[in-house]
Amino acid sequence: MDIADLRSAHPDHWMRAAAIRTLTLDAVAAANSGHSGMPMGMADVATVLYQNHLRFDPKAPHWPDRDRFILSAGHGSMLLYSVLHLTGYEQMTLQQLKDFRQWGARTAGHPEYGHAEGIETTTGPLGQGLANAVGFAMAEESLRAHWGKNIINHHTYVMAGDGCLMEGVSQEALALAGMQQLGHLIVFFDDNGITIDGKVSIADKTDQPARFAASGWHVQEIDGHDPVAIDAAITAAKADPRPSMIACKTHIALGHAAQDTSKGHGALTDAAQLQAAKDAYGWTAGPFEIPENIKAEWEAMGARGAEAHAEWQSRFEKLSSTKQAAFQRQFDMDAPKALAARVRALKKQASESAPKVATRKSSENVLEVINPVMPETIGGSADLTGSNNTLTSDLGTFNPENRKGRYVYFGVREHGMAAAMNGMVLHGGVRPYGGTFMCFTDYARGAIRLSALMKAPVVYVMTHDSIGLGEDGPTHQPVEHLAMLRATPNLNVFRPADTVETAEAWEWALTSKTTPSVLALTRQGLPTVRKEHKTKNLTAQGAYVLAEAEGKRKAILMATGSEVSVALEAKALLEAEGIGTRVVSMPCWELFEQQPDAYRRKVLPPGPVRVAIEAAVRFGWDRWLMGEGGRREKAGYVGMDDFGASAPAETLFEEFGITAEATAAKVKSLIK
Amino acid sequence: MDIADLRSAHPDHWMRAAAIRTLTLDAVAAANSGHSGMPMGMADVATVLYQNHLRFDPKAPHWPDRDRFILSAGHGSMLLYSVLHLTGYEQMTLQQLKDFRQWGARTAGHPEYGHAEGIETTTGPLGQGLANAVGFAMAEESLRAHWGKNIINHHTYVMAGDGCLMEGVSQEALALAGMQQLGHLIVFFDDNGITIDGKVSIADKTDQPARFAASGWHVQEIDGHDPVAIDAAITAAKADPRPSMIACKTHIALGHAAQDTSKGHGALTDAAQLQAAKDAYGWTAGPFEIPENIKAEWEAMGARGAEAHAEWQSRFEKLSSTKQAAFQRQFDMDAPKALAARVRALKKQASESAPKVATRKSSENVLEVINPVMPETIGGSADLTGSNNTLTSDLGTFNPENRKGRYVYFGVREHGMAAAMNGMVLHGGVRPYGGTFMCFTDYARGAIRLSALMKAPVVYVMTHDSIGLGEDGPTHQPVEHLAMLRATPNLNVFRPADTVETAEAWEWALTSKTTPSVLALTRQGLPTVRKEHKTKNLTAQGAYVLAEAEGKRKAILMATGSEVSVALEAKALLEAEGIGTRVVSMPCWELFEQQPDAYRRKVLPPGPVRVAIEAAVRFGWDRWLMGEGGRREKAGYVGMDDFGASAPAETLFEEFGITAEATAAKVKSLIK
Repeated sequence: MDIADLRSAHPDHWMRAAAIRTLTLDAVAAANSGHSGMPMGMADVATVLYQNHLRFDPKAPHWPDRDRFILSAGHGSMLLYSVLHLTGYEQMTLQQLKDFRQWGARTAGHPEYGHAEGIETTTGPLGQGLANAVGFAMAEESLRAHWGKNIINHHTYVMAGDGCLMEGVSQEALALAGMQQLGHLIVFFDDNGITIDGKVSIADKTDQPARFAASGWHVQEIDGHDPVAIDAAITAAKADPRPSMIACKTHIALGHAAQDTSKGHGALTDAAQLQAAKDAYGWTAGPFEIPENIKAEWEAMGARGAEAHAEWQSRFEKLSSTKQAAFQRQFDMDAPKALAARVRALKKQASESAPKVATRKSSENVLEVINPVMPETIGGSADLTGSNNTLTSDLGTFNPENRKGRYVYFGVREHGMAAAMNGMVLHGGVRPYGGTFMCFTDYARGAIRLSALMKAPVVYVMTHDSIGLGEDGPTHQPVEHLAMLRATPNLNVFRPADTVETAEAWEWALTSKTTPSVLALTRQGLPTVRKEHKTKNLTAQGAYVLAEAEGKRKAILMATGSEVSVALEAKALLEAEGIGTRVVSMPCWELFEQQPDAYRRKVLPPGPVRVAIEAAVRFGWDRWLMGEGGRREKAGYVGMDDFGASAPAETLFEEFGITAEATAAKVKSLIK
Repeated sequence: MDIADLRSAHPDHWMRAAAIRTLTLDAVAAANSGHSGMPMGMADVATVLYQNHLRFDPKAPHWPDRDRFILSAGHGSMLLYSVLHLTGYEQMTLQQLKDFRQWGARTAGHPEYGHAEGIETTTGPLGQGLANAVGFAMAEESLRAHWGKNIINHHTYVMAGDGCLMEGVSQEALALAGMQQLGHLIVFFDDNGITIDGKVSIADKTDQPARFAASGWHVQEIDGHDPVAIDAAITAAKADPRPSMIACKTHIALGHAAQDTSKGHGALTDAAQLQAAKDAYGWTAGPFEIPENIKAEWEAMGARGAEAHAEWQSRFEKLSSTKQAAFQRQFDMDAPKALAARVRALKKQASESAPKVATRKSSENVLEVINPVMPETIGGSADLTGSNNTLTSDLGTFNPENRKGRYVYFGVREHGMAAAMNGMVLHGGVRPYGGTFMCFTDYARGAIRLSALMKAPVVYVMTHDSIGLGEDGPTHQPVEHLAMLRATPNLNVFRPADTVETAEAWEWALTSKTTPSVLALTRQGLPTVRKEHKTKNLTAQGAYVLAEAEGKRKAILMATGSEVSVALEAKALLEAEGIGTRVVSMPCWELFEQQPDAYRRKVLPPGPVRVAIEAAVRFGWDRWLMGEGGRREKAGYVGMDDFGASAPAETLFEEFGITAEATAAKVKSLIK
């Protein structure tokens, strides 16, 4: 690669792109840490994209109809930070670049959603950005159909590397995108042939264009350093009705001594080599210094977007004020007023009719009343629609023929589904929920964690939440998953006991703006335990007294979900023997943890024996059994201590000893 | 599909295949649960495979050189159970088929490894079987290279459905297999066009043959009900040097009223429809009844394998007795005698030289002494070789040019790597270990859980195990992962504090025959805490007293990994103030849990204040803080309660308050 040729061929472009390259070199050198090679390799693509195509307004970073730019290869964060700074995003000051990777800076090692405007999603775990982008593009298609293309009509651009494409999540995502014909999705594949361990070919020989084409993508292959080719490819990609993949042949760490090597992937900090690279670029300005004319050219790109934004604004204001308010409400993630009333009515009806029903079915019943008043919900399942009970009447199927449809058949792609839902929330205007079996949260963990980290209020509808699944056996029976999810910060794990708690959990989940929710729901039928109607959302307190001891309180039974009714039965047995027993339903530990100390103490007063009942491992329960006023001598657990088994559910509960009788016996053994 | 035509075209074949179909119908009807459609659709392929190709000996199910048959579409378990019964696997009695999906039966809802001979791996979570198979085939290639093709030379056959192929893990696996040119791997794709939610096309339009071809596979497309075509395709697949995918057009639930529908995927239990299907098959025998002649034909297939097995045995016996013993040792998973001595010598040397070194580097040092005496180890990394320190001298790269190489560049495919390692262990003869960042256990969870469930002693080398990772930021910093992994049954999570504990952990991990291990290792340098050499493996006790209180014991500090040295510093601060402090290192909770009560009580006696220190969430720690003789009033925790941040590691430990000073202050606040 002769740098001199590149420079002379397109000298103005070259210097604009060099600004990204030199800022990257300077920031990584200052931090003595980071990844230089990717921004240096993809600077030309970024420059052409921003200059000629990307529709954005640095002064209005939340403009709903902006194009989205997603850096799936998140280790190349300096590319993003550089262009945000260069185009004039206010938060992305030069000082932020100088503070790259330092405590308190907006410029984290990998782009973190919420740290600075212009960062559309958190990336770093490979493949997630590409999979998010599929969700962004789906949200855009959906909103365009609902609001018209005067209001929503933009593109989602992604930069992904070999690493992203090797990850299974991206393969799920690209197959989904192909099937959905997401024509506004354009992926630049940074085809530099280098990974951390060496050449890509030591681990992969996939013909990537052929792989994308196999799933229905429009594919192009270009020289990723030729601005004319880049521009033409983007133009062609936008014109094609399919999602587009542009394989850009690039040189990692272009112009540096480490060019085209795995060393180039990492932190290039050698001062002499850095200077040599700058010399090769023809870059004479000092560290972190951008010549006025170059900065002005970059800022002009943002100005172009400001015009487009103003035009959009005047179109938007032609909508009726009702429509404007509705649009705004959806993007603000405000729940519609009707939600609370609908939930309340359903709770009342459920308390009165007291059905015996699986909570997955309860969940469907809740969605049946909520979906009609929340046009922003988009439901789906990873090929378990009938089992997850996620489809309600009149949603319609979201597909290329019906973009107004609100139900997505995600296919057997739990990880891709979860990552797409993250993208939908981040795009804004829609509220996704998606289902699979609780056990297969395992497959989606990478994206679930990012929901929590990014504060994206996705709703995970996880049915078949215990051995109550029955015959499918231990591969399908979660035992450790409640603990795993509860251990994750900023993730609310709801395990409702009946229709009433399920409705309350949904209400919380669809009202949250910053915390994703997991609803752990049963396959098997459960009796209604909340037979007395309360307007108040008791589940929102995390735990509450469901049934008070009749005589002197000698025991407290704590349970969640399907085991709450077991606790009530055990209480009956114990009360019959004169052992006053309180039953505490604990549908959401995280919310209980957030209550005032006094409330927690009221629910779990010191003194009585405590036994927790949950068809899952004990891990984590000691917080409530022995902490919070408890005593180890008075603490017991009825649950699982190993994987499950294949048999009818009732047999499993008997064989594993998760019964009212076993609970009562445990209490009695501790009272003695 | 005219059943009559199929019957008349190949009447003998037809009846053999009908045996699978009718046993499936009968077993599902008896269980009133299960998945009928897949075995009914793939019965022809299974029949031809077993009759003409599969090399197996039902009387010697552990014969190392048998072909492996892997039912990746595990919901079709009755296909496997049927052929195991028909060919005469002793454990798979007719009664077992009658007890399908019942408590205590070998015939679980999905095939469970260890439940019956002939079940090569646990499947059900989709894609895993295919990804395991890649590991099986890699093990076979490796062993063939090391032992010669007289001793190891067999095929791995897989049946996978659309669901398997939609899962990201299978996409990772097939790309890896293509790059590795695993010519002895043959995958039948059950191309029935049906998923649970409907037609495959509602979620996927991938051209699967093109997708496999893009990753270097040999592909064929056949009528999956034509025995001649099936036979020819298998013959061609065996002849081709690439891995082979045979797309078999099939009809799910062939011959049943539910044929070609998603209903056909599930349990077909309607008695009249069942009878109608049998009538269409020309099957007149009663439920669970196999006509003598048909059973004899199936049993003859096993007899053919017995001959091959006998020939193999005589070849094997021509090996020197030393070689025979070595081969046997590897397949028995016995550690070589030299292992203990090498670990001991390294421990002694480390205690004496007391290096300050990251435990990931310690791990490399351990592997440097172990790998030369354990020819069965196969190491690898998901593209983080230099960071995970998994590569040692002289391993050589495992690739198509060098099958004797013992190091695998798995690519950025954590899930595929983990699943392949499961396959390697199950194949036998090799012991795999593989590395990635601890945070990306998230990506591999689906397979890690199966290591635990299958009792496959895979070793997961998970480096960068906390905020100690530093600048890469919260996406790369585990905080909840220790809890998640500890919550998983039958999984030992080791978090060693220095080289000595790392060596002990490796010794345990490579000696285990039934429990997989996770080694949580630091990026950052740690001082040696075990300065006094002990021959005994203290880590194998799970926890032990590392430093005793000097004065009266008022506090116990519990810590793991990088925080053990923090605890020692805190002890020094406290002792200086006259507060006698014991430090307990707890490298493996699971092993500590398994110690006798008396030992646990000795390590954690009641009375003193207890403070645990771990750069992770508290979730799970209450077991040791308040249980096991503890008191909530005297319990404290120094650790994380949210996600991490991007900054140099030392800054993060300071900012998050995980320091000796903070620990000492916490102790003092509790003593008051």
